[in-house]
Amino acid sequence: MSDYVQTGIPGVDAMLGSVGIPRGHTILISGGPGSGKTTFAIQYLYMGATEHGEPGVYITLDEEPADIKKNMASFGWNLPQLEREKKLIFINVSPVRTASAERAGLLQLGMKEFKLIKLLGAVREGVEEIGAKRVVIDPVTIFNLQYPGEVERIYAMRDLIADFRKNGCTNLLISELRGTGLDREHQFEEYLVQGVILLRTVMKGDKWNRMFQVTKMRGLAVDNQPRPYDVTGSGIEVYPTLTVFH
Amino acid sequence: MSDYVQTGIPGVDAMLGSVGIPRGHTILISGGPGSGKTTFAIQYLYMGATEHGEPGVYITLDEEPADIKKNMASFGWNLPQLEREKKLIFINVSPVRTASAERAGLLQLGMKEFKLIKLLGAVREGVEEIGAKRVVIDPVTIFNLQYPGEVERIYAMRDLIADFRKNGCTNLLISELRGTGLDREHQFEEYLVQGVILLRTVMKGDKWNRMFQVTKMRGLAVDNQPRPYDVTGSGIEVYPTLTVFH
Amino acid sequence: MSDYVQTGIPGVDAMLGSVGIPRGHTILISGGPGSGKTTFAIQYLYMGATEHGEPGVYITLDEEPADIKKNMASFGWNLPQLEREKKLIFINVSPVRTASAERAGLLQLGMKEFKLIKLLGAVREGVEEIGAKRVVIDPVTIFNLQYPGEVERIYAMRDLIADFRKNGCTNLLISELRGTGLDREHQFEEYLVQGVILLRTVMKGDKWNRMFQVTKMRGLAVDNQPRPYDVTGSGIEVYPTLTVFH
Amino acid sequence: MSDYVQTGIPGVDAMLGSVGIPRGHTILISGGPGSGKTTFAIQYLYMGATEHGEPGVYITLDEEPADIKKNMASFGWNLPQLEREKKLIFINVSPVRTASAERAGLLQLGMKEFKLIKLLGAVREGVEEIGAKRVVIDPVTIFNLQYPGEVERIYAMRDLIADFRKNGCTNLLISELRGTGLDREHQFEEYLVQGVILLRTVMKGDKWNRMFQVTKMRGLAVDNQPRPYDVTGSGIEVYPTLTVFH
Amino acid sequence: MSDYVQTGIPGVDAMLGSVGIPRGHTILISGGPGSGKTTFAIQYLYMGATEHGEPGVYITLDEEPADIKKNMASFGWNLPQLEREKKLIFINVSPVRTASAERAGLLQLGMKEFKLIKLLGAVREGVEEIGAKRVVIDPVTIFNLQYPGEVERIYAMRDLIADFRKNGCTNLLISELRGTGLDREHQFEEYLVQGVILLRTVMKGDKWNRMFQVTKMRGLAVDNQPRPYDVTGSGIEVYPTLTVFH
Amino acid sequence: MSDYVQTGIPGVDAMLGSVGIPRGHTILISGGPGSGKTTFAIQYLYMGATEHGEPGVYITLDEEPADIKKNMASFGWNLPQLEREKKLIFINVSPVRTASAERAGLLQLGMKEFKLIKLLGAVREGVEEIGAKRVVIDPVTIFNLQYPGEVERIYAMRDLIADFRKNGCTNLLISELRGTGLDREHQFEEYLVQGVILLRTVMKGDKWNRMFQVTKMRGLAVDNQPRPYDVTGSGIEVYPTLTVFH
Repeated sequence: MSDYVQTGIPGVDAMLGSVGIPRGHTILISGGPGSGKTTFAIQYLYMGATEHGEPGVYITLDEEPADIKKNMASFGWNLPQLEREKKLIFINVSPVRTASAERAGLLQLGMKEFKLIKLLGAVREGVEEIGAKRVVIDPVTIFNLQYPGEVERIYAMRDLIADFRKNGCTNLLISELRGTGLDREHQFEEYLVQGVILLRTVMKGDKWNRMFQVTKMRGLAVDNQPRPYDVTGSGIEVYPTLTVFH
Repeated sequence: MSDYVQTGIPGVDAMLGSVGIPRGHTILISGGPGSGKTTFAIQYLYMGATEHGEPGVYITLDEEPADIKKNMASFGWNLPQLEREKKLIFINVSPVRTASAERAGLLQLGMKEFKLIKLLGAVREGVEEIGAKRVVIDPVTIFNLQYPGEVERIYAMRDLIADFRKNGCTNLLISELRGTGLDREHQFEEYLVQGVILLRTVMKGDKWNRMFQVTKMRGLAVDNQPRPYDVTGSGIEVYPTLTVFH
Repeated sequence: MSDYVQTGIPGVDAMLGSVGIPRGHTILISGGPGSGKTTFAIQYLYMGATEHGEPGVYITLDEEPADIKKNMASFGWNLPQLEREKKLIFINVSPVRTASAERAGLLQLGMKEFKLIKLLGAVREGVEEIGAKRVVIDPVTIFNLQYPGEVERIYAMRDLIADFRKNGCTNLLISELRGTGLDREHQFEEYLVQGVILLRTVMKGDKWNRMFQVTKMRGLAVDNQPRPYDVTGSGIEVYPTLTVFH
Repeated sequence: MSDYVQTGIPGVDAMLGSVGIPRGHTILISGGPGSGKTTFAIQYLYMGATEHGEPGVYITLDEEPADIKKNMASFGWNLPQLEREKKLIFINVSPVRTASAERAGLLQLGMKEFKLIKLLGAVREGVEEIGAKRVVIDPVTIFNLQYPGEVERIYAMRDLIADFRKNGCTNLLISELRGTGLDREHQFEEYLVQGVILLRTVMKGDKWNRMFQVTKMRGLAVDNQPRPYDVTGSGIEVYPTLTVFH
Repeated sequence: MSDYVQTGIPGVDAMLGSVGIPRGHTILISGGPGSGKTTFAIQYLYMGATEHGEPGVYITLDEEPADIKKNMASFGWNLPQLEREKKLIFINVSPVRTASAERAGLLQLGMKEFKLIKLLGAVREGVEEIGAKRVVIDPVTIFNLQYPGEVERIYAMRDLIADFRKNGCTNLLISELRGTGLDREHQFEEYLVQGVILLRTVMKGDKWNRMFQVTKMRGLAVDNQPRPYDVTGSGIEVYPTLTVFH
Repeated sequence: MSDYVQTGIPGVDAMLGSVGIPRGHTILISGGPGSGKTTFAIQYLYMGATEHGEPGVYITLDEEPADIKKNMASFGWNLPQLEREKKLIFINVSPVRTASAERAGLLQLGMKEFKLIKLLGAVREGVEEIGAKRVVIDPVTIFNLQYPGEVERIYAMRDLIADFRKNGCTNLLISELRGTGLDREHQFEEYLVQGVILLRTVMKGDKWNRMFQVTKMRGLAVDNQPRPYDVTGSGIEVYPTLTVFH
């Protein structure tokens, strides 16, 4: 088994020292709404399952697995088949069960029952069930909101990442950017993970540009320059030899 | 029934992959005061009812239906007739009944009785009554203000959107931008919905420009570039082949 | 009676589709200190009373009517005569009676007695007394400060505007801008009213420019571009065919 | 007695419609540290006393009168003589008596005893004693800090200004700018007074420029453009025919 | 004894009207980390003691006198000898005695015992012991942090400065800038002292420039333009005839 | 033993007056995620141990020593061997033991047991065990978060640095930058340490540049200009003769 995990996403592995993510590392994928974070994550699992023989676990905290599978079909990815072949497993640990309309007045109840332990347990079960090598949590933002103080959030995230380090998998944590604009506050998760990839947009005059950048990757020499990317009919594509304002 | 819902608004469907919004999705329409958000929403329902045989429900939380109908008449849209033909229904779930002047001192009372369940119930009744295929809630901002904490707001909005997903309709949520300026904080709703359309303005020198942009649209390849638009005598018009600073 | 209300202010009606404000609407006039907000409002009432046969009510929450009348005399407007002719009425609903120096230590007392109901009652009395067609409240800012939370403020303002809609008048609400700079947070009132007019200033190099802009006007096609304006010896003058940085 | 009060400060009256401040008005003088606010205020009183036969009252809340007199001697202004001639009176209403070192631990005590009534009483006594026509309060910032909430501050300042309107004098309120930079939040006092004059600085490249501007002056047509000014050996000098970045 | 106190720092007295600081004044020296604030202050005392026969007191609230003496030796200043000659005295009124490691858990205790009275007493003792004419407090920032509210901080600083005015010395208060960037909030101390000197840095392209500026100096005509400065082998050097971006 | 400690990092000692860090000083290394802070710190200890005969202690508060050793192997640094030779010691004083998944619900417990005394004790033991001359704490950010108020944080950091001054070592404190952007708030630690080195990035157009800068270094004349740097296959390399935007 190689020391590196190829994402299989066009252009990305080239920027990752031509080898991919160091095996066992946890990488933060951070982007705005519509930036293709979920597409990136599914593509990572899909390529792992179909090209590299590495089964994957997708932990969703926000969206129904059925919706994700339907949307991703437009890229030509047959996720239900991967599920049947035990190469992919979706786990919905959404902190709130969607309340039926009659009980909507009670919607706050489920929230407090959600705990780190439940999330870690779900990951472990999924990994064991199909012998997964890749794990995605989408998104960690909602997980963070469970903890009222900054210190509690940092400790919970540290614990999550420490536990991840022991599962033998190479993991993506999906994170939502607070705002647009290149100058920004760092999210504390960026300091805790082994790698950070940003999916951003930048306006230049009246033109809107997508910008892919690897700002951190422990243990690997990478291309740190921002590069243009696109969400095409077959998924995310990064152009590692181009500049953003060509 | 097609998998896509044509908005019928000039220029918009061209930007939406020439097909329209994926059926069943919920789209956030976000803009400042005077940006034409309500015009966009009514036009979406009007074109649905008159051109595509799709009845619509308009949930208003802020404004009297009578006022909306009167203002929209200036675009040549005869909304009362659509109501009589059961192709359009207005529902006012304004959290506060306008107090008579004598009881104005008590105006805070009604506020606490307003709940998510009431809003969801109103939508369901409206949809059933006329077999609606399109729903608009205008605006969701006031709905959010009911919930004191950010986490509660996110959960309420998740619940709302989850319930919407089950009504079989294609929905617009109207949202008010916090401020001017292209760099901005994201609204958390942008992460929860399947699509985001921004109606913004930008100053260039001493000229003021309207800017239409589809920043997110799950399951569809769209034109993400900002495009000029206008509020003309016949409603919203987007110019999908032009640039904003031509 | 026309469906539109001419302001009579040079250059403004030209920008308002050459017809004026839609009758019955409530318009927010927002500007910084020294921008001419009060001059604009008095000019609107003066032109209504003298040119269009429409009596007016001026509700002041901040300033003594005597001071306003004296200052406005410099524009050649004889307001006391209009009062005698029952074409104009000033109502001071200042939340605090100016305390005599001896009782200044008690100045907080009056504040809590001020309520929305008192303001609405004053408007109604004034409108009935002279059959007014135009109402001004100057400024709404101090009114807002009475309410401690944002939600309470929004509800109070909604109630005020809803009540206004029933008085048959065309109304101006004067509002104070928080700061200078073109990029700014929106005031929530901008979303509640039917129209918004901004009286701003902008520095270009070391030159200071006055900038008039209609950013919202329900039910009317208007000129939305910023235009230069001035406070001249005969009141506000807007130049609808010029650009600000000519 | 003229309707206008000449400041007697070189260049300023030219900008004030060649006549000066409308008699009886209260003007806010706002500037940063070192901008010459106190020099401006003393010069206004000095010129009034020596050139226009108008005695003046200087209320200091921050600085010892002795220090002010000594510093102002460098401009050739013999303030002690004006005091002896009953043309000028200094009143120290500093909210805290300087504690002797032994009692410094108790320094918070005096603070709460300071009230608006004390300030208003001091002004009235001073005005009566010498038949003053001009009053200065330097600075109002510390006065504002006495009131914990924004609404209380606004009401106290309104009361102060209302009382001032009755004293028959033409008054300056000295105010401290929060920060540098041309874009800024407005101070609420700017909305309450009849006039606002800003003493600011602006960097252009590595050159620092002083900038004088009259941004508000009720009842008078003034030059609103920013103009260069200086603190010279004989006091403040404004250059009304020059531009700041000449 | 001259009315002015020469700093003896190359280039500075030239900017201070060729005479120096007005005797008895208290000047704020404000700069970022590494700007040379402490070097400036020691150089002021050193030059006073060796060139002008004026002994000095250095009050340190942050750093061990031994460390300061050692670091300053690199500029060729023999401070221990000045101490032996009774021309300089160091007083450490650090609010917290460094806890031994065993008692580190108790480190919060000392903090509350620190009071303004202790600081004023230390200054008085030092001044009396060697007949000092110059006093430095380095830094006042930590002193401010002792007071929880803004009003308390202002009053404490006023008291400190008032007491200083009576000690007959010419004093420097060292203050730490909150951030980089030329536009900034003013520190309230700038309004309370008689003079303000800024030691800042500014980036121009990829070049970093040191910038010295006298923004306030009561009772003296000074050069207010920003000037380049350096920390050389013999201390601070200001270039009063150069511009920063030469 | 020399008075200066050579970092041994290519290009850095040249900028540090060609001699290195003054012996016994504590230096803050501040940078964003992925800036190479940990690489810099390990390289400092590695070069000390292998080239200068100075053993080192690495205190980690965030990351497992095993992970650090593995990642650093990619630079060709055999850290386990240094440990066996007693030239390097890793100490993990992470405030929270990674909870086993079963006990994750209890993860908050360990947090309150962490105290300054524990950290200081760990340092002392490490220094004594191998006769260390260099100490690194990575990162101090998490340490700061333990203290709820700003004053408590400052006092704890002062105590930490005071204790460090007595250990005879030359120390690095690793600190995490809050955000991107050259203009920023200072961290209070920058005022407490004897030196500050920033590892930043700056965008110019669509190009991303690494920028190394020594902004503070007590007792030493250094090159304060920003210089380009890189994380190469053999560690950090700074280019002291180049400019960032070459």
